[in-house]
Amino acid sequence: MSDTTPSQTPSTAKANTEQLAADHPLRQAIQEAARQVRQQTPLAQSFTNFVTINLVANAQLAVGGSAAMSYLPDDIADVSEISGASYINVGTLLPFFAQALPEIAQEFARTGHPWVLDPVAAGLGNTRTAILSSFKEYPPTVVRGNASEIITLAHMWKLEDGDDAGHSGNQDSRPAGVESVDDVEHARHAATILARYLVSHSASGKACVAVSGAVDLITDGSLVYRLPGGSELMTKITGAGCSLGGVIGTYLAVSDPLTAALAASAHYNVASEQAALSAKGPGSFQSAFLDGLWNASATDIANAPILLN
Amino acid sequence: MSDTTPSQTPSTAKANTEQLAADHPLRQAIQEAARQVRQQTPLAQSFTNFVTINLVANAQLAVGGSAAMSYLPDDIADVSEISGASYINVGTLLPFFAQALPEIAQEFARTGHPWVLDPVAAGLGNTRTAILSSFKEYPPTVVRGNASEIITLAHMWKLEDGDDAGHSGNQDSRPAGVESVDDVEHARHAATILARYLVSHSASGKACVAVSGAVDLITDGSLVYRLPGGSELMTKITGAGCSLGGVIGTYLAVSDPLTAALAASAHYNVASEQAALSAKGPGSFQSAFLDGLWNASATDIANAPILLN
Amino acid sequence: MSDTTPSQTPSTAKANTEQLAADHPLRQAIQEAARQVRQQTPLAQSFTNFVTINLVANAQLAVGGSAAMSYLPDDIADVSEISGASYINVGTLLPFFAQALPEIAQEFARTGHPWVLDPVAAGLGNTRTAILSSFKEYPPTVVRGNASEIITLAHMWKLEDGDDAGHSGNQDSRPAGVESVDDVEHARHAATILARYLVSHSASGKACVAVSGAVDLITDGSLVYRLPGGSELMTKITGAGCSLGGVIGTYLAVSDPLTAALAASAHYNVASEQAALSAKGPGSFQSAFLDGLWNASATDIANAPILLN
Repeated sequence: MSDTTPSQTPSTAKANTEQLAADHPLRQAIQEAARQVRQQTPLAQSFTNFVTINLVANAQLAVGGSAAMSYLPDDIADVSEISGASYINVGTLLPFFAQALPEIAQEFARTGHPWVLDPVAAGLGNTRTAILSSFKEYPPTVVRGNASEIITLAHMWKLEDGDDAGHSGNQDSRPAGVESVDDVEHARHAATILARYLVSHSASGKACVAVSGAVDLITDGSLVYRLPGGSELMTKITGAGCSLGGVIGTYLAVSDPLTAALAASAHYNVASEQAALSAKGPGSFQSAFLDGLWNASATDIANAPILLN
Repeated sequence: MSDTTPSQTPSTAKANTEQLAADHPLRQAIQEAARQVRQQTPLAQSFTNFVTINLVANAQLAVGGSAAMSYLPDDIADVSEISGASYINVGTLLPFFAQALPEIAQEFARTGHPWVLDPVAAGLGNTRTAILSSFKEYPPTVVRGNASEIITLAHMWKLEDGDDAGHSGNQDSRPAGVESVDDVEHARHAATILARYLVSHSASGKACVAVSGAVDLITDGSLVYRLPGGSELMTKITGAGCSLGGVIGTYLAVSDPLTAALAASAHYNVASEQAALSAKGPGSFQSAFLDGLWNASATDIANAPILLN
Repeated sequence: MSDTTPSQTPSTAKANTEQLAADHPLRQAIQEAARQVRQQTPLAQSFTNFVTINLVANAQLAVGGSAAMSYLPDDIADVSEISGASYINVGTLLPFFAQALPEIAQEFARTGHPWVLDPVAAGLGNTRTAILSSFKEYPPTVVRGNASEIITLAHMWKLEDGDDAGHSGNQDSRPAGVESVDDVEHARHAATILARYLVSHSASGKACVAVSGAVDLITDGSLVYRLPGGSELMTKITGAGCSLGGVIGTYLAVSDPLTAALAASAHYNVASEQAALSAKGPGSFQSAFLDGLWNASATDIANAPILLN
């Protein structure tokens, strides 16, 4: 796909984009999810990279949840029995992850345990490609990534059909490390077909894909939601995306996948806008962002801008 | 043990609980320990989890100590020669830890090197259980954990005698990930018998157990001390407990085990109360807490509330 | 070498130390490097320790660069194709690092990829010694460490000739964990011969060594530069040195080794002095330091004090 040719398919065409109504059932579900996280302090387990593991845990605590981090399959299996959802992030791989991660995904599939995948740097390194490819057989409930990662994962899983092959993004694009080289809108088609695949394999029949960027794009495979807002300073601290993945896990422990992704993303936008008001740079921004997650009310979160289609 | 039946044994009965006198020798020892940490900048080495490793190091520096973190037995052995004490935390296990940790504990026993154990998530995962079980033969000088972890460890090491078996806590309780599901008071008996076991195996004949909670409970196996105070926000940042374990290690490098546990816990309470005054949420609280550790005077620390028995 | 006998060799004698002129070409190169980092957002890849990995990434982002962290050789090789430079820090070793790190250094040598080595705790542990020794054959472009680490590395690589052997620092000195036991000036000779060795093996014919301390010492093997300034609070947060190594990597992606080391060190001094003005302790200092990195102008950085032999 050329960067200048907009992709348009019936299901994902961007037409009549409008604000989700104030009394839309999804906004009620988001508000209820935010309340439940604060009431239940749900545990979401993480298998995540070493760079941002601390921020993932602190963000989960700041939204009202509880955190536990593990790497061993026996540990993960035990903790998954007492956690509502799990989060897997393939950022900083160690050699044993190549065996452990497919084994863990298989175990989650066996028990129907919901989980969020963050395909960090998809496309870089043979080990990462082998791990991400293996997840096709035991797919997650939610995938959260940047545009390049979502496009690469859909391509890696060979989800494009003949007609749509041209819509799956610039296949010559190479991820720029952990940063996206593609625009969120370019990942719309890849996100939609990926979400449909996840839905078709989900124990609950529900799943979604969240593409992070200046405007977040979230889809359950049928409808496409866009969340504008947030702060640019989020790109100047490490772990904004990873910790969002962890917080989607926290919300997934108390709600369905689409509500979880929308609520977590809306919570992030509210908190980061609040933080930007007082921040003097990325250091004070990170502190203020965690404060913002803690202080955002369920009503604030439910009222954040969400565009449909 | 039922949650509603208070356990009472002669040595640990909660009777005549009273504030430790201002001129009690323990308060003088605490003040001297706080002074020594600032004067000597003692090195305490850590083998700790990947989530909170940064906070452990920063807390050790903020109280006035020095930090070094390692995972390889050959590294640990070399560093233990130049460090006053070590800290081991079993939070995020990797496969090779199963061999490395027992080997390290054995080496510490051989040289009489004092160390603090943080049995994070005791009871979850076969690998963790194997590692924690192995430590019975080469026990630490101090154990610091939440109530569930202390109860689980005492049970794992089969320290209960026939009469006391009923006092070792709710054995049906399952750790809620890394959070305690048991109250500190329920761990009093387990902490006491655990401390006695540690004392009987300690090179110096001294050891203690610290149970963290809303009120911390610390015992050397004979007397029980309780430290009320601190801030609830400590439960909303990750690593409050882990970093306390690391700071007990710092204090253990300059004082006896009981003084180290009391001084570190008192230092934490003073700093967290100070931090809560200005915090706007968990992000600003963590910054202010490290500032509080740095600014607390030896006198402030020695005068913190400590209840005896 | 005795601590009280100043070492003097013709090439490194401290004579006529004077401020680098305001219009010196090096100051122009530093200013241009700072501008380029902000314009290009260059990616510098890191293989670094688990304690300070988050601060390394955040510091690289705060100066204007981009970050990616990896441990697997296949990952590192892929990312090195899209990153301008890499950073390797041997702080917290895992067993597989013993094979992975020499393999990575060899790959960097094969492709002429520039990289920064941080020989944390050089001299402690057989595994670390084996890894650092192996780098002699495939040396880095820049070495950044404290005085003890630089002296130990030069000694480990047997770079002293007969005449100079006495000048390579106190060879009986043992690293105090990760803290230097030697003064920066004592490492001048070791830094100079190390830099010459790096230059003679550099694909570009350029290399340098940066010794961190109260006054930083930087040499390309011919001239010696000293950067006074900065804040003492930098020694009270973990990762000040590690993150400086990472930021030298960021600058190395857009400039030559000497300019990179000078610019990064000057940037650090400007930011830490700014942060010290508002800090209430090490917690608020770290936040303010990242803000300071973000807010320092290219002109501020280029005008920082730099003394030339």
